[in-house]
Amino acid sequence: MLAQLIALDWGTTSLRAYRLGPNAGVLDQRSLASGIMQLPKAPRVIAGQLCADGFELAFDEACGDWLDAQPGLPVIACGMVGSAQGWREAAYCDTPANVANLGTSLQTVRSLRGVDVHIVPGVIQRSRLPNVMRGEETQVLGVLQNLPAGAGDNLLIGLPGSHSKWVEVVEGCITHFDTFMTGELFAVLSEHSILGRTQQRGAAFDCAAFDRGVKVASSADGEIGPLSTLFSSRSLGLTGELSAKQQPDYLSGLLIGHELAALATVRRHHSAKLASIVLIGNAQLCTRYQRALAICGFPHVALAEQATERGLWQLAVAAGLIGKTAPVQPD
Amino acid sequence: MLAQLIALDWGTTSLRAYRLGPNAGVLDQRSLASGIMQLPKAPRVIAGQLCADGFELAFDEACGDWLDAQPGLPVIACGMVGSAQGWREAAYCDTPANVANLGTSLQTVRSLRGVDVHIVPGVIQRSRLPNVMRGEETQVLGVLQNLPAGAGDNLLIGLPGSHSKWVEVVEGCITHFDTFMTGELFAVLSEHSILGRTQQRGAAFDCAAFDRGVKVASSADGEIGPLSTLFSSRSLGLTGELSAKQQPDYLSGLLIGHELAALATVRRHHSAKLASIVLIGNAQLCTRYQRALAICGFPHVALAEQATERGLWQLAVAAGLIGKTAPVQPD
Repeated sequence: MLAQLIALDWGTTSLRAYRLGPNAGVLDQRSLASGIMQLPKAPRVIAGQLCADGFELAFDEACGDWLDAQPGLPVIACGMVGSAQGWREAAYCDTPANVANLGTSLQTVRSLRGVDVHIVPGVIQRSRLPNVMRGEETQVLGVLQNLPAGAGDNLLIGLPGSHSKWVEVVEGCITHFDTFMTGELFAVLSEHSILGRTQQRGAAFDCAAFDRGVKVASSADGEIGPLSTLFSSRSLGLTGELSAKQQPDYLSGLLIGHELAALATVRRHHSAKLASIVLIGNAQLCTRYQRALAICGFPHVALAEQATERGLWQLAVAAGLIGKTAPVQPD
Repeated sequence: MLAQLIALDWGTTSLRAYRLGPNAGVLDQRSLASGIMQLPKAPRVIAGQLCADGFELAFDEACGDWLDAQPGLPVIACGMVGSAQGWREAAYCDTPANVANLGTSLQTVRSLRGVDVHIVPGVIQRSRLPNVMRGEETQVLGVLQNLPAGAGDNLLIGLPGSHSKWVEVVEGCITHFDTFMTGELFAVLSEHSILGRTQQRGAAFDCAAFDRGVKVASSADGEIGPLSTLFSSRSLGLTGELSAKQQPDYLSGLLIGHELAALATVRRHHSAKLASIVLIGNAQLCTRYQRALAICGFPHVALAEQATERGLWQLAVAAGLIGKTAPVQPD
């Protein structure tokens, strides 16, 4: 089947490429380790020229053969590829941001083979403590398209990760979001702090240890905040109440629990009722957040699928790169 | 002048040795880098035997000549030297702990040269989230000795550091304490997280950037907690509101501010009035905490001096290693 769009989700450490048919149907997909911080280096001939540019090399690996087979195919990309360290910087769009204003703000870089790559800008919220996202805006738009009617009322979209984002959407617009450095903090504490020294990593997920961490963070014991409760991962080990194997998942639960407890606190300023949640992201991490959200009393949690490719599709339509209706298929 | 006690403050990364005369007067002092995690390795002859034991080597460097000159001198040591990774483990004493029960719980290790080293145990608080300290208990006891009468009412003793401790004392007893991993978190975030990548370190202390961080943490903007506000060190850089040079002190202020805001929150459960504070520790770090405490509204802050050597002296007296009254001096 002929494709209509090549969609790239190009982050810091990975590059996912999708060959999309009518209505964002995935015809083919690939995952490469060529994120913008680990681009390929070995020079190679591309479009008749010897090339050593990492972005060109990664782009060619990701979808060169798809473009050879179907040269006129439009290409759209989101994520850190549009950052100052990316292939071409796509300046942030301000909140409120929606499909229309993001779709008409794509930045273009012409690749060696003559194909334009259309890069989605990130979103900036110029609050007293500013917030930025790159890539997550596309996933959020991909989710919105598939929401049941009325689901947007008191809805929060959560994107767990190194830097988790929690996004409020009003009538299709990204109006407000917060960032939590939970995932990165877990990684640096486990690898570089005293807490890592007594951890035994690599065991299967210990849901009891994880839940215990969440409960500490969201209970009265957690009021003293994560800077203090963190130490309990060590001190409970010293008293024999937490084994080396349990410590990683306890710490993970503690940090995610503090993230959700803080989110609940600030959201309660806006609404007495806790929001309905849609989670986007890595399945294992979403499982952890689902458990933690249930413990913290969030009543409705759903998981989104194929958010990135659907978001990129929507933006390509808004940008006029493809028609809204499916063209007649040649075979 | 003849000494009465050798007092060692033997931590993870450093070893401070004091030769103390009557009433804890410091006759001599030394600072070595031979903490228990970086002991000397080169074998040497000690007391007629070739020795490769790091604790023996460090001990000999720290005070071998003092003991040669005055062989009967008692030796007392506090800090991580008494941990499971130390020279000899001195099991924690439970809270409430005071000079009397710590002084009668010293652990002894006999050194190669035949001198006993008396090691002060740490203190453990067996609360739901347990807390432990090693070395700080000695400093706290050293401060208590010198407090003006009545100062102990609603008093908090703060020991800023990698793992800051905040200690409540009632009638000479350590009754409750909390730990905050603020210093270590600052170090690992600066060295290993994305926040460090945009920091320019090594500049002079930027008090405006530091104060700004404290104010964010202790204001309504800080209610979302450190896992989220941390990201503002990066995002304010992206928007040009915080220079690379300002970022380290902003982050330092943010973390210390969250520590103090959390402390104020949990302390308010006990007492409507914020406590009077005595700080013990590194002068530069205490200056930061003094600034931050003032911003957070703590009314009375004093700095303690010579807390460790005074605490070790008190414990040596309680243990009967030296008499309470000064002996007649021979010259």
